[in-house]
Amino acid sequence: MIPTGLVMKLPSKVYFEEHTTGAQLWWKDIVRDFRVLAEDEVLPPGVKSGVSFETISVNPGVYLLWLKSELEQRGVDFVRHRLGSLDEVRSVVGDSAAVINATGLGARSLVGVQDDRMFPIRGQTIVAIAPKAVEFVTVISATKTSNPIYLIPRPAPPGMVLVGGTFQENNWDTSIHKDTAQAIWQRANVFVPALADPGTRIVSHNVGLRPARAGGPRVEAEYIDMPIKDELAPRLAETEDVLGIRKQLVVHSYGFGPAGYQQSWGAAAEVVAILRKELDGQR
Amino acid sequence: MIPTGLVMKLPSKVYFEEHTTGAQLWWKDIVRDFRVLAEDEVLPPGVKSGVSFETISVNPGVYLLWLKSELEQRGVDFVRHRLGSLDEVRSVVGDSAAVINATGLGARSLVGVQDDRMFPIRGQTIVAIAPKAVEFVTVISATKTSNPIYLIPRPAPPGMVLVGGTFQENNWDTSIHKDTAQAIWQRANVFVPALADPGTRIVSHNVGLRPARAGGPRVEAEYIDMPIKDELAPRLAETEDVLGIRKQLVVHSYGFGPAGYQQSWGAAAEVVAILRKELDGQR
Repeated sequence: MIPTGLVMKLPSKVYFEEHTTGAQLWWKDIVRDFRVLAEDEVLPPGVKSGVSFETISVNPGVYLLWLKSELEQRGVDFVRHRLGSLDEVRSVVGDSAAVINATGLGARSLVGVQDDRMFPIRGQTIVAIAPKAVEFVTVISATKTSNPIYLIPRPAPPGMVLVGGTFQENNWDTSIHKDTAQAIWQRANVFVPALADPGTRIVSHNVGLRPARAGGPRVEAEYIDMPIKDELAPRLAETEDVLGIRKQLVVHSYGFGPAGYQQSWGAAAEVVAILRKELDGQR
Repeated sequence: MIPTGLVMKLPSKVYFEEHTTGAQLWWKDIVRDFRVLAEDEVLPPGVKSGVSFETISVNPGVYLLWLKSELEQRGVDFVRHRLGSLDEVRSVVGDSAAVINATGLGARSLVGVQDDRMFPIRGQTIVAIAPKAVEFVTVISATKTSNPIYLIPRPAPPGMVLVGGTFQENNWDTSIHKDTAQAIWQRANVFVPALADPGTRIVSHNVGLRPARAGGPRVEAEYIDMPIKDELAPRLAETEDVLGIRKQLVVHSYGFGPAGYQQSWGAAAEVVAILRKELDGQR
């Protein structure tokens, strides 16, 4: 059962600060009704061209609960447990399990992984109710900017939009900056005049750290000696030393940066394929 | 009922990299058995003097649960609720409540407070079982350093110690740095040879952000117009606009930096005194 408010069709516009035909957009044949805006269509200030198309919008809060419910119906148990070292997984699931390491930014800290290619890209956003802002709008800047402009309508509640934002690499600051919020709101109002509607109101300010990785995402198998041999590895039970060393299959899947939702189904399919191959090889 | 493992007596040594009588230590008359170490007592390398005394150690994990239980027995309800703006408190406790704003680092983000004097001081530490390290040991450096050395035994479980650390201002990085952990462990082993005992093992690596404030903690009353008049203030219900403006008594108590546990009882007493004075004035 797909719940109400999970997903909706989303009319969209991507603007450019220079003249373009949109030919460079790899996704132009994936979305529906793709077309380049005509010369005489009204463009926001500072914008020289644009494309329009139809895509979909997903409500992350509803989507994650739906995913969880789907998995539970298929017999998946959910356990929350804080792990300092990869081999502590054993204390949760036992010896026979394969391990999928999808720890995101945590892959930087988890002993046994400690991937120092991981870094955060700070994103500050505003969630608002803006009943008149019904299109996805973003501006692709000709110059590199750490302040992208985007407005993403969400399926529910009615009128909810995400307004952004920032794209600050290696910034771990999880506090909300008032001056940043003001700048986001002012810029968004220039590009989406519908935001100025009197029915618009702010719901919340948010900061998130996108889990990025230098060189791109890591989706691959690794066999790791457990227990982890490292003077500084957490050692919770003396018994671990007694059990001896063994190779543990770990499939990594992390580092997707700003496009985690978009890449998640592809990554999951790749993880399953890798897992099948490795387990077949063990037989 | 004070639970087992909550608190213990703690033999302590504070070392200095220069000659000192310890006369500059404001707390020397508060702790028990304070004395300056004799010239012929063995000092760690790089250390020129030291003092010894007895104080107490509290187990934060047990302590907080004990505090909560004590408060519940006195009729205090605990409610977890994420608030973006100070006036959202109304939706949780109603109109008649006085508000104590003890939001720590959150005071930087909370609309209606947004105290940009707040900043984090990053602390990376190691929790270990070190049965032979039974004293609190720290080194006061003659030169400013962002890497203080300290080892704090905890009441429970047996042998548990906190080993630190870092003191990095304006650093929001919540990931664990392996090189930092190595440096902490090596420095601590120089100053506390008992750490080298074969019974020693790492339990966890930790990073915390101490909620510091330029100019020191803020403990004071303020009357704030609610709802918050700010274009960017979250506005969850239209009804708030209908209720009209009123002055809300808010007592702030935040910004204690690295010494929150030590200052907490004094801060609480001050908050109660402020609250009594303001409420008496309203009658």
